[in-house]
Amino acid sequence: MKAAVYYGKKDIRVEEWEDRPLQADEVKVKVAWTGICGSDLHEYVDGPLNTPADPNKYTNRQLPFPLGHEFSGIVEDIGADVTHVAKGDRVVINPSLTPENQPEGFDNTEGIGFLGLIRPGAFAQYVNAPETVVHKVPDNLPLKYAALVEPQAVANQAIKEARLAFGQTVAVIGVGPIGIATILGAKSAGAKRIVAIDLSDERLSLAKDMGADAVYNSNNFDTQQILDSEGFDKGFDVTFEVAGVAPTFVQAIELTKPRGQVSILSIFAHEIEWNPAQLTKSFVNVQASLGYTYDTFLDTLELIANGRIDASKMITSEISLDEVPDGFELLANDKKQAKILVNVDGEDN
Amino acid sequence: MKAAVYYGKKDIRVEEWEDRPLQADEVKVKVAWTGICGSDLHEYVDGPLNTPADPNKYTNRQLPFPLGHEFSGIVEDIGADVTHVAKGDRVVINPSLTPENQPEGFDNTEGIGFLGLIRPGAFAQYVNAPETVVHKVPDNLPLKYAALVEPQAVANQAIKEARLAFGQTVAVIGVGPIGIATILGAKSAGAKRIVAIDLSDERLSLAKDMGADAVYNSNNFDTQQILDSEGFDKGFDVTFEVAGVAPTFVQAIELTKPRGQVSILSIFAHEIEWNPAQLTKSFVNVQASLGYTYDTFLDTLELIANGRIDASKMITSEISLDEVPDGFELLANDKKQAKILVNVDGEDN
Repeated sequence: MKAAVYYGKKDIRVEEWEDRPLQADEVKVKVAWTGICGSDLHEYVDGPLNTPADPNKYTNRQLPFPLGHEFSGIVEDIGADVTHVAKGDRVVINPSLTPENQPEGFDNTEGIGFLGLIRPGAFAQYVNAPETVVHKVPDNLPLKYAALVEPQAVANQAIKEARLAFGQTVAVIGVGPIGIATILGAKSAGAKRIVAIDLSDERLSLAKDMGADAVYNSNNFDTQQILDSEGFDKGFDVTFEVAGVAPTFVQAIELTKPRGQVSILSIFAHEIEWNPAQLTKSFVNVQASLGYTYDTFLDTLELIANGRIDASKMITSEISLDEVPDGFELLANDKKQAKILVNVDGEDN
Repeated sequence: MKAAVYYGKKDIRVEEWEDRPLQADEVKVKVAWTGICGSDLHEYVDGPLNTPADPNKYTNRQLPFPLGHEFSGIVEDIGADVTHVAKGDRVVINPSLTPENQPEGFDNTEGIGFLGLIRPGAFAQYVNAPETVVHKVPDNLPLKYAALVEPQAVANQAIKEARLAFGQTVAVIGVGPIGIATILGAKSAGAKRIVAIDLSDERLSLAKDMGADAVYNSNNFDTQQILDSEGFDKGFDVTFEVAGVAPTFVQAIELTKPRGQVSILSIFAHEIEWNPAQLTKSFVNVQASLGYTYDTFLDTLELIANGRIDASKMITSEISLDEVPDGFELLANDKKQAKILVNVDGEDN
């Protein structure tokens, strides 16, 4: 089959590639649509990071293989033990596998066997996935949008963890793909006002399109100016930090009201210098979220299928499998890009 | 009157001292018992810090004057406008005054006009306090124990903010007076197991006396060894950080289960180097607490009066007003001390 195979930093090759034979508990999925994730980009720009140069302890797989974990498709074949899906089913995949490939709820990141990171993923015509992670897609939901469930679930999990309540106010710092999904999710969760903050006017314009009620460029507005402009005495109910640097960490706390919640969706690459007394003065709660539970993935599928979340808005480009290397370059360099979808099978399904 | 007057670092003088005349909205309290607080000690060792060398913007008062904000006494006289207490009433004082001397709930530390820090306090025979902060003490509660309401309220507020639930597990890092109050409060709140961690065996022995179910000296047990010894796979429900240094900040998060709560009760004097990714990996919530609301102060008075919290356990020494300078030295140097109470009026009331 054809695949965009990841060899390492800046090295993705579109070529013939074959996975191991289908196992008894696996489903062979003919891939329809696959999104390029920020973590895929991270591997491309700086990797291998979370991909295995040596055999992974859970999956025993190692590079080179195709990345790609945000995807949908059609069941092409099933292993001998598979019972709950059949050839021809339209499906979406929850790629967060536990070591035993069981889709349990998880509460930390130890040993998650992410499909598309530590075993072969969906920048390929076919993927073999454990049956337990393959979910049927409702008839009314195009596969194109089913491929958006995974990134949206990341944002939805953070929104749940932050206990965002109906009618609250939200700030989102950093308008990358997950920042956009957070705006979409917060809107669906009933936030009454959503404000986006970034250094790029292009990204802020995208945030506006996604439904942000106001946007602020940090080059022109400091924290106090944002709060003044919003008419807030005390700050936002919930602030999502999706940028991952020291100044935005401090700003997230500054923007949040006493007893409000800061949720970190970024992954900090480095230590920061910070005084925990900022919490003593502000009474703000800080937490982080990563990934999603089994339930949140299915919630999100339903929210998108029912139109509660119009995730289609986050799609900024559609490319072919042959164009995957160009797609990575585009996502790395063009700040107007949010979600680039790869139309792997070339069908408008 | 006689008072232990604070002039500055290491300089407390027992001498004759007079406050300004009683104002119309003030109550003159004949002081019975006053506790020495960690923040008093901080002023003594390193001050003036939160005490005004120059006139304070809210109170217009400046040093020298007596410190002392954990106290009880008997109403000696009332100003012309005072209506809700009368001469002879047994009272306790909530020293956290707002700029307008109104006992509103507060949600940050801006402008709290702390009695005994930015206006004269109770290491003195008499204190003039605004009527709004003077509360009657139930008949059955000795004034000696009423003086413990203030420090206990600090711990109780943190316990409430952390949403500690009935039957949960608690770790307390740092067994100073507030650490001890936290153990007492957590026990009263129905924690099923309370563990204390410190570097001092003397303090840990005190923690045992206060009701800690187990104690660990950090010189002998690292975080994993504590968790193993407790038989915890995932950690404590709530961890109170009452030490205020980088290693205990990190340890507090390590000790806490996913979606558990870290509550910081210490005030960090310095920045720390820390990676927020520790939250991403652990799913732990971090918050801080400082002071208490109006309601929590009154809750705490009732909990102590009703015997739900036996705060008397935290008293390790009783001294006279003349001995206040020695009491500060004792608290600074003797790790076996938790709460040193000054018996200002010499009565066993």
